[in-house]
Amino acid sequence: MSQKNYTNFRVTIPEPWIAHVEINRPEQLNAIIPDLWLELRTVFDQLSTNPSIRAVVFSGSGERAFSVGIDLKWVSKEGSPFIPRPNEYADPARRAADLRRFGAEFQECITSIEKCQKRAAADFCSAADIRICSKDTIFSVKEVDIGIASDIGILARLPKVVGSYTWVKDVAMTGRNFDADEARREGFVSSVLPTKKDAIAEALRIAKILSEKSPVAVQTVKHFLDHSRDRTVAEGLQYQLAYNTAVVQTNDVPAAIGALVSKKVPTFEKL
Amino acid sequence: MSQKNYTNFRVTIPEPWIAHVEINRPEQLNAIIPDLWLELRTVFDQLSTNPSIRAVVFSGSGERAFSVGIDLKWVSKEGSPFIPRPNEYADPARRAADLRRFGAEFQECITSIEKCQKRAAADFCSAADIRICSKDTIFSVKEVDIGIASDIGILARLPKVVGSYTWVKDVAMTGRNFDADEARREGFVSSVLPTKKDAIAEALRIAKILSEKSPVAVQTVKHFLDHSRDRTVAEGLQYQLAYNTAVVQTNDVPAAIGALVSKKVPTFEKL
Amino acid sequence: MSQKNYTNFRVTIPEPWIAHVEINRPEQLNAIIPDLWLELRTVFDQLSTNPSIRAVVFSGSGERAFSVGIDLKWVSKEGSPFIPRPNEYADPARRAADLRRFGAEFQECITSIEKCQKRAAADFCSAADIRICSKDTIFSVKEVDIGIASDIGILARLPKVVGSYTWVKDVAMTGRNFDADEARREGFVSSVLPTKKDAIAEALRIAKILSEKSPVAVQTVKHFLDHSRDRTVAEGLQYQLAYNTAVVQTNDVPAAIGALVSKKVPTFEKL
Amino acid sequence: MSQKNYTNFRVTIPEPWIAHVEINRPEQLNAIIPDLWLELRTVFDQLSTNPSIRAVVFSGSGERAFSVGIDLKWVSKEGSPFIPRPNEYADPARRAADLRRFGAEFQECITSIEKCQKRAAADFCSAADIRICSKDTIFSVKEVDIGIASDIGILARLPKVVGSYTWVKDVAMTGRNFDADEARREGFVSSVLPTKKDAIAEALRIAKILSEKSPVAVQTVKHFLDHSRDRTVAEGLQYQLAYNTAVVQTNDVPAAIGALVSKKVPTFEKL
Amino acid sequence: MSQKNYTNFRVTIPEPWIAHVEINRPEQLNAIIPDLWLELRTVFDQLSTNPSIRAVVFSGSGERAFSVGIDLKWVSKEGSPFIPRPNEYADPARRAADLRRFGAEFQECITSIEKCQKRAAADFCSAADIRICSKDTIFSVKEVDIGIASDIGILARLPKVVGSYTWVKDVAMTGRNFDADEARREGFVSSVLPTKKDAIAEALRIAKILSEKSPVAVQTVKHFLDHSRDRTVAEGLQYQLAYNTAVVQTNDVPAAIGALVSKKVPTFEKL
Amino acid sequence: MSQKNYTNFRVTIPEPWIAHVEINRPEQLNAIIPDLWLELRTVFDQLSTNPSIRAVVFSGSGERAFSVGIDLKWVSKEGSPFIPRPNEYADPARRAADLRRFGAEFQECITSIEKCQKRAAADFCSAADIRICSKDTIFSVKEVDIGIASDIGILARLPKVVGSYTWVKDVAMTGRNFDADEARREGFVSSVLPTKKDAIAEALRIAKILSEKSPVAVQTVKHFLDHSRDRTVAEGLQYQLAYNTAVVQTNDVPAAIGALVSKKVPTFEKL
Repeated sequence: MSQKNYTNFRVTIPEPWIAHVEINRPEQLNAIIPDLWLELRTVFDQLSTNPSIRAVVFSGSGERAFSVGIDLKWVSKEGSPFIPRPNEYADPARRAADLRRFGAEFQECITSIEKCQKRAAADFCSAADIRICSKDTIFSVKEVDIGIASDIGILARLPKVVGSYTWVKDVAMTGRNFDADEARREGFVSSVLPTKKDAIAEALRIAKILSEKSPVAVQTVKHFLDHSRDRTVAEGLQYQLAYNTAVVQTNDVPAAIGALVSKKVPTFEKL
Repeated sequence: MSQKNYTNFRVTIPEPWIAHVEINRPEQLNAIIPDLWLELRTVFDQLSTNPSIRAVVFSGSGERAFSVGIDLKWVSKEGSPFIPRPNEYADPARRAADLRRFGAEFQECITSIEKCQKRAAADFCSAADIRICSKDTIFSVKEVDIGIASDIGILARLPKVVGSYTWVKDVAMTGRNFDADEARREGFVSSVLPTKKDAIAEALRIAKILSEKSPVAVQTVKHFLDHSRDRTVAEGLQYQLAYNTAVVQTNDVPAAIGALVSKKVPTFEKL
Repeated sequence: MSQKNYTNFRVTIPEPWIAHVEINRPEQLNAIIPDLWLELRTVFDQLSTNPSIRAVVFSGSGERAFSVGIDLKWVSKEGSPFIPRPNEYADPARRAADLRRFGAEFQECITSIEKCQKRAAADFCSAADIRICSKDTIFSVKEVDIGIASDIGILARLPKVVGSYTWVKDVAMTGRNFDADEARREGFVSSVLPTKKDAIAEALRIAKILSEKSPVAVQTVKHFLDHSRDRTVAEGLQYQLAYNTAVVQTNDVPAAIGALVSKKVPTFEKL
Repeated sequence: MSQKNYTNFRVTIPEPWIAHVEINRPEQLNAIIPDLWLELRTVFDQLSTNPSIRAVVFSGSGERAFSVGIDLKWVSKEGSPFIPRPNEYADPARRAADLRRFGAEFQECITSIEKCQKRAAADFCSAADIRICSKDTIFSVKEVDIGIASDIGILARLPKVVGSYTWVKDVAMTGRNFDADEARREGFVSSVLPTKKDAIAEALRIAKILSEKSPVAVQTVKHFLDHSRDRTVAEGLQYQLAYNTAVVQTNDVPAAIGALVSKKVPTFEKL
Repeated sequence: MSQKNYTNFRVTIPEPWIAHVEINRPEQLNAIIPDLWLELRTVFDQLSTNPSIRAVVFSGSGERAFSVGIDLKWVSKEGSPFIPRPNEYADPARRAADLRRFGAEFQECITSIEKCQKRAAADFCSAADIRICSKDTIFSVKEVDIGIASDIGILARLPKVVGSYTWVKDVAMTGRNFDADEARREGFVSSVLPTKKDAIAEALRIAKILSEKSPVAVQTVKHFLDHSRDRTVAEGLQYQLAYNTAVVQTNDVPAAIGALVSKKVPTFEKL
Repeated sequence: MSQKNYTNFRVTIPEPWIAHVEINRPEQLNAIIPDLWLELRTVFDQLSTNPSIRAVVFSGSGERAFSVGIDLKWVSKEGSPFIPRPNEYADPARRAADLRRFGAEFQECITSIEKCQKRAAADFCSAADIRICSKDTIFSVKEVDIGIASDIGILARLPKVVGSYTWVKDVAMTGRNFDADEARREGFVSSVLPTKKDAIAEALRIAKILSEKSPVAVQTVKHFLDHSRDRTVAEGLQYQLAYNTAVVQTNDVPAAIGALVSKKVPTFEKL
């Protein structure tokens, strides 16, 4: 099944309801450049509102890396936001305005993964819903090594996606590598598979489960968890109730209950 | 020692200061019906202000299940909030008003466990203080299978009671089962005992420890943790100080210190 | 290399950029008295703005204990805030005002560790960045045993530094001991070393890594994590962007990138 | 039209959809006693869910006063929470627990006015929706004169219901009286009528207007304003959207639009 | 000076740095239709980042009305979100999803005025910075009359832009009209001019003042006020400091100070 | 009665319990320099905990001005934070660190007025409790004219101390002057007196009233208002209750009630 063409991504539909998004710069080890993250938002925004898609698997292409992260060549080139041309942005407040626009755009692109109404079984960053990886994956929060405290999402989300805050500070402040087993032990990924192929297969298996549930229910669960994680329990409960008063009226509920009682497989309208 | 009679619960006092609350519908595997959760609030509200009770153990009766969760028979009956009678609530806003009242009531009943000023050593849901279980316990967040994103508490609390957010999304979005060992590994329960009998014994052991401490201190610790969990450290510190200015003046402090110094067992007034 | 003299602390500079702070009351097992915590703030405030220091290792002196915690002798003496002299503070509101000033001061002293702009590789309390300990360390949250719910920081931070909330309530409400392995398993410490000597060596090793990075970057990472932990992702992202517009303009970025590309060791100006 | 009997209130139905609640202790100038505020909650909770009531007018009976406030006789009697019996509550923490229960109950009773899903055109306190008064009304925030900072609502709401914060501090810290004209000028009341009779007539006129609108719409407007007042604009917008997805599906919308287009008077189902 | 063509707006540049945006459906009394608000976002987003524009005047075209608000004809047509076609959106949860997308888009469009980095001297809605109007302007919050509680901004912002909360509830719950003088008295507009022409002239006068100041300073003042309005003073101060560390380094500061000292008119780079 | 000597302030005790603080640089029109604001904190911190002081009147000395604001001469001198010496702070991140320390110190000094536990009847800035002024006072928020958005308090507090947000943006973005009558009309001051002498007399009159009340009550009222202003009503109520459980046990309550009943003047212990 074919899809809109992208420059930096390959998007396929391996099974009904499921999209597989691959970063497609294998020769550059899927290094991230501005072009790529702008396209990332387009990819996820379109999948988010596509009623024929219910789950997204997100991975890197090629054998060697999910992504080496931001492209060091681009970062270190004169004219990047980090190495301005001499005499350019002579005024720090105007350079700041530029950095603010640049950063806001980057933040928004990354956040598009989290906001995507389809649930992503992926091995990507802190904005994905469910992270799985292969045994040989190496992770790191490397920005500290180029003199920067990342503001694009990882430092805002990391304290919220794992439990041990001393570990969070250890990896984020030293920039050291950690492997798949450590990632599993600390809760950063929820499962580790022997090979990349196995990891993709496992991601597709989970995606299939998600795609067979009521899309109303799965999408709302995801939204409730993301909303409540950051608020008091009382605020979470009040919002969920407001949201659910419409959602619970869905036909998916009698359909799901009927199927459960009669032990049949339910089918659900597109959303 | 006997207690007020309840329809869906059995409440006993196995030892001084300790109440044992059992859901008492063993033949229905302790399935939850509206009647039961309304009574739940009554049970916990009364224990909360009963000065002779300092700890509550909460479990299911019978051998087979703590609770299978909401009663599927009731949910799927015409006239339940999920399957309204034809032509009933024809107006979505009025049906919404009804759902809002229904949900608010249900939320409040569950929250009564968390608000209970007595600390619950229990194997129940996310609102209990300390969760322990037997080896053969099977857990799940099943609402997604009836087309619903639960708004009664689990999705507001789950991201806050365990560390791994990818695991939270995995179990909440797929609705899959997880066993006692997985629950322990992820921090959802703090201990796993061989049998249900052992779990109850362990719960009573912890309850006994709690009941022998200053009730002022234990109750305040519980309140501070619940308050601070959801707020900034600065807000937490300010509130705790305001609260403690009265509480620290208690006679329990010299009593506890005196006992500690003289290596005797302290006794504390009722609260 | 010598340092300003302190009564209750020993501060040394074992290597350039690194300070080692030791609580220095080994005969009292480093028990905490008012004098000590006032001095603690002075120590950390001075290190925080000292441009020649980039990392702080914090430990107890002597072989036997990091610290037994608050000095029970002082607490139980007539005239302490917990055992007022008879007829003193006859008015509860005025005693409350006194307790408020006492507590605010104590809170502020402890918070000085967290606020310290230098990152502390330490085996201390919940306010340190990275916690490591030796195999034989015994931890506890003991205040409940003197009839008090601590308001100086532990109950505001503990739910945020480890993942399992049932474990948090277990140790904070029962006051029970837990050992190094349990602390590691629950994420309270990030590594356990065989002996105290090894732990200090490991702390110095991490401190050295931190001190060789851009101080602008490391300090900002620490600040972003502490800020975002307590706020919504959206608030965190907005603040980080505002903060970074100045910080990213630092010369440390081209210096770090240049070093990375040329595989040399970068050096960074004092901060 | 008659109503359930109350001890301290008179509740009448002067017109369809409108309830008039009067504090009924004219000889004591409607002074507030514990019994009265407990009954207050009952009154407003019942009106709140009574589908035949769409607006509530709240006033004092008699000619002389809306209410002189808390009954000084009761406050100053031995055994009140403010003048405990000698040797009673000897332990400050246990007296604090008592005060906390007492205050929480009182807060909840007052809040029942604000939570009442029917909109109150009233001349009462800060918790009412719309405040109007007669020319000769005298207001004050008097608690400071009995040595107390009120915690039952006025100090939490006053900074939010008028604009001038210097005025708020002036009246709340000095406890001085202010008259109807000053109340109008500062925005505490929205209109001043010559006599009490006129004020009641005006309140009934507004109540009539409210009762002829869609109850879904009016009730939601009130809820949105109260919710948003205390939160960021972004939070307010997100919540309103979640809430409205059900509410906007109401039949009241086509009914209201149809009436508007055809210039007829719409009628709306009970809510 | 000509500008990009719009269907529903006229955008002119009456003076350097100043844009004048007019809603351009005079025959429909500038009634709002979906097309118009989508275009509104485009207009303001483009002005927001146009370095040649420093202030925006926003008004309605024609003599008769700024805008009558949402187009009643469109609202009441079958197929609008409020009057869905029969059998369309039979599933309330799917209709809710649709309403959510519709509302989010509308909210975002209105918010584009508030987010516009150029300051709007306008007579428009609650999202403008400075509101001025002519003597004969009639205002209202009318949604309640079509059975709806508006979720597009007015109910989230109104409690924050005027002081008297009783007045806010009065106009928002009754939907009654209020005139220019009342708007001025309550603080909803900051000045009232005799005619529409005078109002536009006054708006241009203010716009000119704004356009002659440092664009860095004016833009930051606007952002700080909007950010702090909704947060605690402590949060506001912390954010402002983070933001300003870059902004205060601007060349505009020495330029402005130099001009002030030498009593000359400063000029500032584009931003 | 004499007081500790200050360089930039004159502090007198015109009556028992009342301090009068005057900025004492009349020849420089009380212009603010770094030295002055550091001393400001000292002055208010000492008054805050001085049990013999219950109210503070704060004014400028001399006939001509309360204060012209920040000293333009100092601001425009090379070496000020706004005009760094050439080649100084060559690194923007290090200059930012410096600006952050400078700003944080300045913020803290201004905030010391708000935090002062004594209530200030003053004609100063947004951090005072009660603002009164003489007829000829001219106000402005002038920072925009030196290219700066103030981060020291005014922009964080102004939206919270008056009601009309359009007026706030008008004066803060244009930097225009406004006179005493406008300040009164918008609620920025609560009274306007003919001359400076009258204003001081009025301030002393209010201070006297405050000093004769229970210091426990007045101080708590101030704290509750400042705390609640920035938080939800629910948070405000919960905090006030926690705080009051100690405070209400004060002897000041029976003393005040006794005095009220017997119509005598109460006296209260120092606090």
